[in-house]
Amino acid sequence: MKVSAIITLKKDVLDPQGKVIQQTLDGMGFNNINEVRQGKYFEIDVQENDSIKAKEIVEDMCKKLLANLVIENYKIIETQ
Amino acid sequence: MKVSAIITLKKDVLDPQGKVIQQTLDGMGFNNINEVRQGKYFEIDVQENDSIKAKEIVEDMCKKLLANLVIENYKIIETQ
Repeated sequence: MKVSAIITLKKDVLDPQGKVIQQTLDGMGFNNINEVRQGKYFEIDVQENDSIKAKEIVEDMCKKLLANLVIENYKIIETQ
Repeated sequence: MKVSAIITLKKDVLDPQGKVIQQTLDGMGFNNINEVRQGKYFEIDVQENDSIKAKEIVEDMCKKLLANLVIENYKIIETQ
């Protein structure tokens, strides 16, 4: 089954890339934005039909490779 | 309110970055993966309290800047 992982920077970590996107959007006329933060998204197709086990595998991947837990948070979601 | 946009490559578009992540995970012992596909994630805080309107604004941003609609799909989700 497919499981998705979203990796985002922690709240207090500066996100210059998000800031630039916000400025660009502002320049295009989107003036009502408070903040843009960028993250990473992974869609992982695991050979495991049990939803809970599949999520555990992907969480393990996040901890070991996909996320830098010092500055990033991860969120595991089921892909519809 | 905060709205999230997930940008993913279309099904038939090659994703070499995802492939490398899959190979790396395989080398780390995660051998039961069918596929990994990488995408982008944006969390946008819009000055708009109406959920539907906020989503429309972010959809507009995706069309105009965030996604390349030739090779990418976007999905708008409310951030919990």
